[in-house]
Amino acid sequence: MGPGPSNCHPGVLEAMAQPLLGHLDPDFLTIMDETQELLRQVLKTRNRLTLPVSGTGSAGMETCLCNLIEPGDPVLVCINGVFGTRMADIVQRLRGELHMIEAEWGRPLDPAAVEAAVLGCSPKLVAIVHAETSTGVLQPLEDVSRIAHEAGALLLVDAVTSLGGCNVDTDGRQIDAVYSGTQKCLSCPPGLAPVSFSRRALEVLDARREKVSSWYLDMSMVKKYWGSERTYHHTAPISMIYALNRALKVVLEEGLEARFARHRRNHEALVAGLEAMGLEMLVDEPYRLPMLNAVRIPNGVEDGAVRRVLLAEHNIEIGGGLGPLAGRVWRIGLMGHSSTAENVLLLLGALEEILQAQGAEVRNGGMEAVRAVLDSP
Amino acid sequence: MGPGPSNCHPGVLEAMAQPLLGHLDPDFLTIMDETQELLRQVLKTRNRLTLPVSGTGSAGMETCLCNLIEPGDPVLVCINGVFGTRMADIVQRLRGELHMIEAEWGRPLDPAAVEAAVLGCSPKLVAIVHAETSTGVLQPLEDVSRIAHEAGALLLVDAVTSLGGCNVDTDGRQIDAVYSGTQKCLSCPPGLAPVSFSRRALEVLDARREKVSSWYLDMSMVKKYWGSERTYHHTAPISMIYALNRALKVVLEEGLEARFARHRRNHEALVAGLEAMGLEMLVDEPYRLPMLNAVRIPNGVEDGAVRRVLLAEHNIEIGGGLGPLAGRVWRIGLMGHSSTAENVLLLLGALEEILQAQGAEVRNGGMEAVRAVLDSP
Repeated sequence: MGPGPSNCHPGVLEAMAQPLLGHLDPDFLTIMDETQELLRQVLKTRNRLTLPVSGTGSAGMETCLCNLIEPGDPVLVCINGVFGTRMADIVQRLRGELHMIEAEWGRPLDPAAVEAAVLGCSPKLVAIVHAETSTGVLQPLEDVSRIAHEAGALLLVDAVTSLGGCNVDTDGRQIDAVYSGTQKCLSCPPGLAPVSFSRRALEVLDARREKVSSWYLDMSMVKKYWGSERTYHHTAPISMIYALNRALKVVLEEGLEARFARHRRNHEALVAGLEAMGLEMLVDEPYRLPMLNAVRIPNGVEDGAVRRVLLAEHNIEIGGGLGPLAGRVWRIGLMGHSSTAENVLLLLGALEEILQAQGAEVRNGGMEAVRAVLDSP
Repeated sequence: MGPGPSNCHPGVLEAMAQPLLGHLDPDFLTIMDETQELLRQVLKTRNRLTLPVSGTGSAGMETCLCNLIEPGDPVLVCINGVFGTRMADIVQRLRGELHMIEAEWGRPLDPAAVEAAVLGCSPKLVAIVHAETSTGVLQPLEDVSRIAHEAGALLLVDAVTSLGGCNVDTDGRQIDAVYSGTQKCLSCPPGLAPVSFSRRALEVLDARREKVSSWYLDMSMVKKYWGSERTYHHTAPISMIYALNRALKVVLEEGLEARFARHRRNHEALVAGLEAMGLEMLVDEPYRLPMLNAVRIPNGVEDGAVRRVLLAEHNIEIGGGLGPLAGRVWRIGLMGHSSTAENVLLLLGALEEILQAQGAEVRNGGMEAVRAVLDSP
């Protein structure tokens, strides 16, 4: 119940243990094609260039940036947490012309401020995080998408934590490049980064003046292995692709809307319980992520001690804060296969016990508040 | 029996299916430490900076190059196959000053020629492939190591296909940076790239003037997650590390010398059988890789048809040629868990049958020649 990896469906673990096919075996190529089609469904896109990059979510971030940016290109990065900060770092390494707009950690970017920044720097690309795993903020994307496109910029979205847990809607929101990770709401082990590029992004790729700085992540070659050419590039991580294939089927068997509703219900139950206990959420209600809940650590309570007891005595992992939020919040994941009513109840019971043992003021009624949400129609 | 992935030991597949620990869980950190120590034993090194990069072997190649090279640095790349060519491509993307020395595909680099090239360009780094998977050539490293170090250069070695199947001997040969892959003679699924950096290489890393172009592969940050700081960088591919940990234990339980001897014995048996049938090896005897056997396709035999029948009717995969060797050789892998007497006999029997059905001239006595090698003391 930390910020990922989440627990896996047993069928996904079973898929990991299947014997290996060759990376050019016709049976494996069929699995690749199917995995791409499943990914398109989960991403809600018809983009042809949709595939899992052979690395973790951060490799997906770097893939999107290094393929779309060339030295000197103006790029606007929206920052309200660790992952926006990371994008800015990568843009600098790519020798892009970096422009930044920041919001307080724990709050979304304000579209009016984004618009002013876009008008100020005329970026080739606007990069923004849909679900900031470091703070629990859900960023509304519609306005930012409109603003970026009206200025002729591409829109790049980090959907590492949102994909499979809330609506990413790649085509509906006209996202030009999106990346995710497997170990959050897709509930697959970490190791792959689904990415998808729009037709406009493909045109930018095709019109590059110089080669992508990374050979490993160069989509102009990777796409030929995943496309009909099947040109050897690097050996695909076979077992991870088996697992992602199975995990995407688990997602679609549940149904995207049902899955989003489950994440929301369990999130609301958790928040009701935490608030009934007297704890306070970091993020304002409309911008809370359903799968990553940042809750303020009560005064006088020692962060590390609580998490150590949770892990050692209750076998529950939750995350600590990062950057300016270190020691100030806990990050409670309810991601994919781990987003269950049982986990909400288990955690709240354990947390109540530990906080009381530490002498913190905790109100009663947390469990009742949770059950009221879970039992509501 | 292609150029990788090889088959896995059942224990390795079982490890892939274990439930996930968090990437900062104390129990997982213990597994990381142990995996590094096992890697050091298999690489025969005491290098502190020894870890699996979160990508396939090519990510290991890029990691070594992008961390050690800065724009303008002179680099000598030795090329006698696909993977030397790939290194040269990466050096250019990194804006290094690329110098190349080439040997015919199927032959090793001549140390005298390497020495002349080193004297001509005074490189910061000499890059060479120990086991060229595209041709089956084993490159002797001792002379090249001496030449590089006498000129004050670092020595970078591609050990993707050799590690776990023949002696890499990182410290003994004073290799400054080495990378490998998991899916060859370590018999672990593809997805990780073991790397190791010497003290001299670390000094070069620490003295960099500018940041590494890749955030994902930047060892100055990755080493802090694998080191005592445990600073979060990216989410480790947990299951793949479970698998590598188990695969390395399988290697060391067999013993490195016993494992090398097994690879050599099965290779000699295969070659004896192929030559008895009248087929011809691409590589001269002293430079043949034990784990990757390139054999010339007899005149009049259709490459693709033979491989298709081998796969469809005999369930055996072998590799085709790459680049100038496409259609001219087959590449037969005897890697790790797949290097067995049974596999040699199975393949030779099937190949004899298919070649005869195609009307190729095949001499009898292949199986007897194999058994003679396998039964020798």
